[in-house]
Amino acid sequence: MTNQTLLTVEEIRKHNTPEDCWIVVDGNVWDITDFAPQHPGGGQIIWKHAGRDATTSYSEIHAPSVLSSNLDPSKLKGAVDSSTITDEWQKPPPKLTTKLKLHDKPDLYSLINAQDFEDVAESTISKKTWAFYSSAATDCMTRSKNREYFSKLWFRPRLLRKVGNVSTKTTILGHDVGVPFFVSPAAMAKMIHPEGEKGIARGCSDLRVPQCISNNASFPVHEIVPAVPKEKNHPFFFQLYVNREREKSEALLRHVAAQGIDTIFVTVDGPVQGKREADERVKVDEGLITPMSGQSTKNDRQGGGIGRIMGNYIDPNFTWDDFAWVREHWKGKIVVKGIQSWQDAKKCADLGMEGVLLGNHGGRNLDTSPPAILILLECQRNCPEIFSQLEIFVDGGIRRGTDILKCLCLGATAVGIGRPFLYALNYGEEGVRHFNDIMRQELEVAMALVGITDLAQCEARFVSTAELDAMVGVGEEHPYASGKRLRGRMSERAQL
Amino acid sequence: MTNQTLLTVEEIRKHNTPEDCWIVVDGNVWDITDFAPQHPGGGQIIWKHAGRDATTSYSEIHAPSVLSSNLDPSKLKGAVDSSTITDEWQKPPPKLTTKLKLHDKPDLYSLINAQDFEDVAESTISKKTWAFYSSAATDCMTRSKNREYFSKLWFRPRLLRKVGNVSTKTTILGHDVGVPFFVSPAAMAKMIHPEGEKGIARGCSDLRVPQCISNNASFPVHEIVPAVPKEKNHPFFFQLYVNREREKSEALLRHVAAQGIDTIFVTVDGPVQGKREADERVKVDEGLITPMSGQSTKNDRQGGGIGRIMGNYIDPNFTWDDFAWVREHWKGKIVVKGIQSWQDAKKCADLGMEGVLLGNHGGRNLDTSPPAILILLECQRNCPEIFSQLEIFVDGGIRRGTDILKCLCLGATAVGIGRPFLYALNYGEEGVRHFNDIMRQELEVAMALVGITDLAQCEARFVSTAELDAMVGVGEEHPYASGKRLRGRMSERAQL
Amino acid sequence: MTNQTLLTVEEIRKHNTPEDCWIVVDGNVWDITDFAPQHPGGGQIIWKHAGRDATTSYSEIHAPSVLSSNLDPSKLKGAVDSSTITDEWQKPPPKLTTKLKLHDKPDLYSLINAQDFEDVAESTISKKTWAFYSSAATDCMTRSKNREYFSKLWFRPRLLRKVGNVSTKTTILGHDVGVPFFVSPAAMAKMIHPEGEKGIARGCSDLRVPQCISNNASFPVHEIVPAVPKEKNHPFFFQLYVNREREKSEALLRHVAAQGIDTIFVTVDGPVQGKREADERVKVDEGLITPMSGQSTKNDRQGGGIGRIMGNYIDPNFTWDDFAWVREHWKGKIVVKGIQSWQDAKKCADLGMEGVLLGNHGGRNLDTSPPAILILLECQRNCPEIFSQLEIFVDGGIRRGTDILKCLCLGATAVGIGRPFLYALNYGEEGVRHFNDIMRQELEVAMALVGITDLAQCEARFVSTAELDAMVGVGEEHPYASGKRLRGRMSERAQL
Amino acid sequence: MTNQTLLTVEEIRKHNTPEDCWIVVDGNVWDITDFAPQHPGGGQIIWKHAGRDATTSYSEIHAPSVLSSNLDPSKLKGAVDSSTITDEWQKPPPKLTTKLKLHDKPDLYSLINAQDFEDVAESTISKKTWAFYSSAATDCMTRSKNREYFSKLWFRPRLLRKVGNVSTKTTILGHDVGVPFFVSPAAMAKMIHPEGEKGIARGCSDLRVPQCISNNASFPVHEIVPAVPKEKNHPFFFQLYVNREREKSEALLRHVAAQGIDTIFVTVDGPVQGKREADERVKVDEGLITPMSGQSTKNDRQGGGIGRIMGNYIDPNFTWDDFAWVREHWKGKIVVKGIQSWQDAKKCADLGMEGVLLGNHGGRNLDTSPPAILILLECQRNCPEIFSQLEIFVDGGIRRGTDILKCLCLGATAVGIGRPFLYALNYGEEGVRHFNDIMRQELEVAMALVGITDLAQCEARFVSTAELDAMVGVGEEHPYASGKRLRGRMSERAQL
Repeated sequence: MTNQTLLTVEEIRKHNTPEDCWIVVDGNVWDITDFAPQHPGGGQIIWKHAGRDATTSYSEIHAPSVLSSNLDPSKLKGAVDSSTITDEWQKPPPKLTTKLKLHDKPDLYSLINAQDFEDVAESTISKKTWAFYSSAATDCMTRSKNREYFSKLWFRPRLLRKVGNVSTKTTILGHDVGVPFFVSPAAMAKMIHPEGEKGIARGCSDLRVPQCISNNASFPVHEIVPAVPKEKNHPFFFQLYVNREREKSEALLRHVAAQGIDTIFVTVDGPVQGKREADERVKVDEGLITPMSGQSTKNDRQGGGIGRIMGNYIDPNFTWDDFAWVREHWKGKIVVKGIQSWQDAKKCADLGMEGVLLGNHGGRNLDTSPPAILILLECQRNCPEIFSQLEIFVDGGIRRGTDILKCLCLGATAVGIGRPFLYALNYGEEGVRHFNDIMRQELEVAMALVGITDLAQCEARFVSTAELDAMVGVGEEHPYASGKRLRGRMSERAQL
Repeated sequence: MTNQTLLTVEEIRKHNTPEDCWIVVDGNVWDITDFAPQHPGGGQIIWKHAGRDATTSYSEIHAPSVLSSNLDPSKLKGAVDSSTITDEWQKPPPKLTTKLKLHDKPDLYSLINAQDFEDVAESTISKKTWAFYSSAATDCMTRSKNREYFSKLWFRPRLLRKVGNVSTKTTILGHDVGVPFFVSPAAMAKMIHPEGEKGIARGCSDLRVPQCISNNASFPVHEIVPAVPKEKNHPFFFQLYVNREREKSEALLRHVAAQGIDTIFVTVDGPVQGKREADERVKVDEGLITPMSGQSTKNDRQGGGIGRIMGNYIDPNFTWDDFAWVREHWKGKIVVKGIQSWQDAKKCADLGMEGVLLGNHGGRNLDTSPPAILILLECQRNCPEIFSQLEIFVDGGIRRGTDILKCLCLGATAVGIGRPFLYALNYGEEGVRHFNDIMRQELEVAMALVGITDLAQCEARFVSTAELDAMVGVGEEHPYASGKRLRGRMSERAQL
Repeated sequence: MTNQTLLTVEEIRKHNTPEDCWIVVDGNVWDITDFAPQHPGGGQIIWKHAGRDATTSYSEIHAPSVLSSNLDPSKLKGAVDSSTITDEWQKPPPKLTTKLKLHDKPDLYSLINAQDFEDVAESTISKKTWAFYSSAATDCMTRSKNREYFSKLWFRPRLLRKVGNVSTKTTILGHDVGVPFFVSPAAMAKMIHPEGEKGIARGCSDLRVPQCISNNASFPVHEIVPAVPKEKNHPFFFQLYVNREREKSEALLRHVAAQGIDTIFVTVDGPVQGKREADERVKVDEGLITPMSGQSTKNDRQGGGIGRIMGNYIDPNFTWDDFAWVREHWKGKIVVKGIQSWQDAKKCADLGMEGVLLGNHGGRNLDTSPPAILILLECQRNCPEIFSQLEIFVDGGIRRGTDILKCLCLGATAVGIGRPFLYALNYGEEGVRHFNDIMRQELEVAMALVGITDLAQCEARFVSTAELDAMVGVGEEHPYASGKRLRGRMSERAQL
Repeated sequence: MTNQTLLTVEEIRKHNTPEDCWIVVDGNVWDITDFAPQHPGGGQIIWKHAGRDATTSYSEIHAPSVLSSNLDPSKLKGAVDSSTITDEWQKPPPKLTTKLKLHDKPDLYSLINAQDFEDVAESTISKKTWAFYSSAATDCMTRSKNREYFSKLWFRPRLLRKVGNVSTKTTILGHDVGVPFFVSPAAMAKMIHPEGEKGIARGCSDLRVPQCISNNASFPVHEIVPAVPKEKNHPFFFQLYVNREREKSEALLRHVAAQGIDTIFVTVDGPVQGKREADERVKVDEGLITPMSGQSTKNDRQGGGIGRIMGNYIDPNFTWDDFAWVREHWKGKIVVKGIQSWQDAKKCADLGMEGVLLGNHGGRNLDTSPPAILILLECQRNCPEIFSQLEIFVDGGIRRGTDILKCLCLGATAVGIGRPFLYALNYGEEGVRHFNDIMRQELEVAMALVGITDLAQCEARFVSTAELDAMVGVGEEHPYASGKRLRGRMSERAQL
């Protein structure tokens, strides 16, 4: 190999774009422009070395001869003139941890269910985004049981009931909607797609799927709401985390109301943030911000947990009494989000709330908190009267039209869906629209096969709860003594 | 290598049969006739390139040197005369997706149970046929629980009862039969074997296993019935999907009756088609037809789901009242197929049906619809009187003689077996006959070991249902309120 | 390579022993004497080709160059003089399927529990022996639940009870024994070790573990009994399968009594043989015989199932009444083996049997017959009086000292252990002795930790049966109608 | 290769340190100094052969050419002068089985939960240490159920309860502590880290986590206690195994009291040692000693089980009555450790003990003894009064803050944690401190999310025990007869 043109570092670094990409490996300079897009590991991992020395990264993965035996000799542009190397040039390239695509996404319409979107996300989005979105508290028991418990409910279909014309329309909190589900608030949608929450809004507008905007959204509410043309009168809700500095919440509520939003979901199941280990284990790109809560990502000794770091402003001392303050600053409807016991659900009804969302934060806060469907059954058992006093919502683990139908048969007005909307946004607004269509179609088929044509026909008798009934608590009863422990008290002899 | 005879495309394309097969790879022309049958990937994948340029397909799988190092130099016939290449010749060969055999089938008699037939089918039939036959609705919970729940029933054998002479004979819907099972209707048997439903008929004739011919069979009924000599008086039933255009169903029923068939199974659990994802994910060869329903396969944006596409003619608005119309156009016996609740089963008895088939369409329509055995137990609990009013059949997940015996002990007259007959047909009529023998032998052994010699001795006390009893619903009771939800209604404050 | 001495077939075949072993591969003659013992696949597979042409077997496994590149050139003795090849010489060597060792056995004393013996057997004995010994009926549910259900019983240990001196001695059917278990009859022990049942006898003599000799033993009883010196008065029992030709059984019983045996176990749970698929799938070496039943192995179209083929002589029409005939020809004690319901157990007591063995033939006959421990609990529930009327034994799935202790706490006199003794015999008599020691030690430790020192202290309160109680049948009750089916009867309309 | 300098053994053995390391393989002498630290199997396995013949070890792992093809020819220093070889030189190097590090430990602060510490230990500590620490009795059912059963308890959180200020402080046996858990006694901490129990003490001092020193500790109590400065008044307890030679225990108790310790845990669930198979299977370095029990490790024919060998001194005949002797020689508090039934727990209360530790020795003694949480529930059911009579502790399987909180809600004063402290000690005192911080933080978060701020607010109503209730025994009741077996008695006929 005598093609030993010496090239200066100044020259090499000019070729630092995907369109004109040189890299240095072991002193040799290669023009990798044509090859990079076909790189099995993705082009991006090459492009970040464009115009630089890639020897270290290269050597971790490849044998020395891979380049010379795969590239045409003409791609070897020469050798580095080592006398021109500078410290700056030798520095490793900037970390791009959250931008790196691992695989190409398959065609959107080859995805046919919620799990497909999740699988594609797992293999195509950055490690950090996946960690933040998918993670749940400690051993992730609640996250997995949220889903699993739906499969413990068997349908009891009734046949021959003229199901040629099925409608999934209903009303949620006074809004006419095309389907009995809405977007549960989930933070920082821009991490997966630049359209962020605006893309979700657009993808939801055809079916009129209400979007509950996260307090920790990537965009402020006044940028999200206009994403759908005003004449569509799209239903938006707003999720409120009550701020330790109340005046900030007050200002935010004023701002939200000014956008025409008439309902807030006050999240109450996160007074402190759960320990999401997958999220902690992956470093975060520092400096991402959530405009409405004014937080910014950073890493600390505990790890890179976005949820933990970004939730610092939430007031852990917010109590039932403080709802008077909420009512003072918010004249619209209020839904309490994250209720996990029939007692608290009943309290919401007694306090005149317009709705309650039964759920456990997708299993992200307290592990082994009860699966969502158990909370719903518990309310049916202990305070059935509340089902005519306020609207009952459920979220956590809903991935199928059959899951939705089961919740509605057991008394829910509608259900919330969280993570799947983020995974659908991986394809932008069109992905969200396709995901909504899938869920609507699944629900339609399930309704027809169970034997109903309108959601008003949902009844508990269409579902067998036998496998879960023994798990559902009744009243305050339990067979164990309480508050009688001798914690830390000594028997007399021990005092000697 | 100087054997560079130049060959014209015209010459090359003459060698385009399995018996005389040349292919071109990287410009070289190889005589692959002798090698193709031993090709680890099957001969067919080579033969479809016979007389053509196979470079693209070849390169996806093989290293460049595989041919030259495995074939005798004499097989290299020369090089393509590139001046003779035409556009037409370069076109890829026709798709043969559904015909491709992956592996050779093992000897038929080395297969000794239903699962063996399924395993062989999975590895030897086309991806599409496998997808269509094996698929079930969404998460396939019902398909798997259909089988699993049989293993939750323990026998309670009684010993020392003179079981040297066991008979599996019985009567089904007035027909003397050799075994208490029949072929459940399953569509498009020709996809797995050219004999299609005719092969099933022939393979069933010795044991007099009744065949319920699918409305979506690959052959019309007047071709299937004569497959068994008339003097054998073989029992056939016909499955009816009621057509949106009733006159088509009427004509079909007249035609069926004219073939001497005296019983129809009216399938009622598919007013709309379930979402069978495995089926959707594999493209179908377009233009396959089902002669009696007049449908034709095609692909659309949702996928290649045969079940969905071919079921369009089925009337979703068919109701209980419409059975009057059925009786008007059908003077024979009627079995209602797909019943999933004791209430609907009782309705069949009340309406004077001759039989009811409890089942869930093999889990293909509504996922988490109840496993077949649960429906049977539910009928025993809630309406035991119907067991003396009409014949009760069960299908879904039956794979063993013990499964059959359990159903009969719990009150079934006979059971239906669906997919396994298709998988047996992989070996044509002989495969079906062998499969029937296997099932009969398994049943005989089970009867002897439980302590009975005749199916009339089947009694519930031979089976412990303890593991399932808690799952069996009683009456309409359930612990949850119903129809009390406030779906879409606003509380007063919310109206503000 | 010019070492082309031509060798005649006559010369080659002289080198046909492990000590002097030549083989022919692709016409070349190799001296493989030194290499064979180190052959990764075992020497035996080479030795069976000693003095012959091994090309076919060799080529199935190895690339052509393996020999030449691994052996010293001096091992190439020459080439076959092809003019001397005879038909006889070219015949494949005799099948040795059941003798083939796959791996070397580890040191006996490195095995420390029953599972170790099973694991070693699986990897060191012939495929056929493993298939025959380990197989069970169809899906092997009962075989696996036999073991699994023991782990559903929790101990309730009581502490501080002076357990320094624990004794495992007890009395079984009038014999003083060292441990409360015995060798359950299992067929054809010689398949795993030439000592066969004699080795078991010798390995059991120190602890006085009773051996119940199989009717299908590899040796006749008069060869097994003398394997232990007469002065040891070792306890032997005999298993009887009642022969279709009663006079053969009568002669056998006379012969057994003449050997001094005072107890027979009459096996009643195998009137026909279960379908053991693993056994069927592996061909058997034909011509192995069981001297006492006079059967001989062979293969047929169903497969090579030893159990099925060798059990043909068993009378399926033997009934309770026939025990009069047994008593007439047997003056000793009688235990009925294979009882699976409390009703049949009670019948044994009513008929004055001396014992009953609750079990399901190790899951080898009827799959989904009840796990052994369930039968025991069912007897406790429904006929506790029989526990003082006859001795109750249990077998099936016992692998641990804790399993034994649980059975005894729940009322068993002793337990039978079957397959593990065969696997222990893999090491001959010493293996059996070591296995007995292991089981005794495990039992001792379990007794001490539960809080007892003598088996007479076993009580049901030391075991929690909570996880199984719901599975235990009470009386004849079950919630389902019985004998009310309309199997094969037509409703009136259907008669039209 | 002509670099055949002959080297004497005397010369070679000089190069016997990691800094200057020669080894001999197949007669060749290699300088392996530079390579050893990069050895994929770790440097240590090479260094132990430094200056010696490593042929045997080398050949077990590597092909002959590995050295010559990976090392620079200059590293071949010559050949052994075989005339200088001595017997001593040829001896295998000293066994270092317990010192061998397999992988480098990750950064301590990248470990974020108890499982992380366990995983790191498994891959970084010696096989033997891992086997001894992690092993449990026979099939390890109890060890795994100890953990699994915690996930069968669901929380019933109550929200909006002002949880901004959570305290984990409490009092254990009269000592103010920072968290409601303590170090359960576990033997021989020095096997994982030279600081041993002293490191645990130091790492526990900040949070005032009480340390219960094992009777089989690697250091004597008078070396462990001073590891924390006296002014910290750190809480230590002492575990007593009562010695067969009572005077040794008496002396030990005097010595313990002299160190200022006021509480002993008398372990009563190990009158004999359980069969820990993983521990038996790995040979132990002989001669390790436990100074307070005076035992020393060795291997015997049963294996290398440290637990079995080192526990020989424990008196299996110690009974309830002997507590009078304990009180005579110990004037402080007494906790009885290892109680597994409500009856024995109640007995402790009746005898005036200060505490009882419910548990099963981490599943190390009797397999299928009940999971720890079941014993706690059983006490709640049957003798709730004892919760105000003595302090109740639980250990076994506690790995999460949620586990701790569940135990406290169900009545425990505090919980013990055993193995995790050993795994944390892998990082010395700092590891222990970090582990304590993790557990405290997890507990804090769980408390806040359940809705309490102080451990005094723990109540049974915060936990649903529904999945376990059916497993909890009530009284002495069980449905089975007891003590009625006819073990070893013959029916009359049998006496003939």
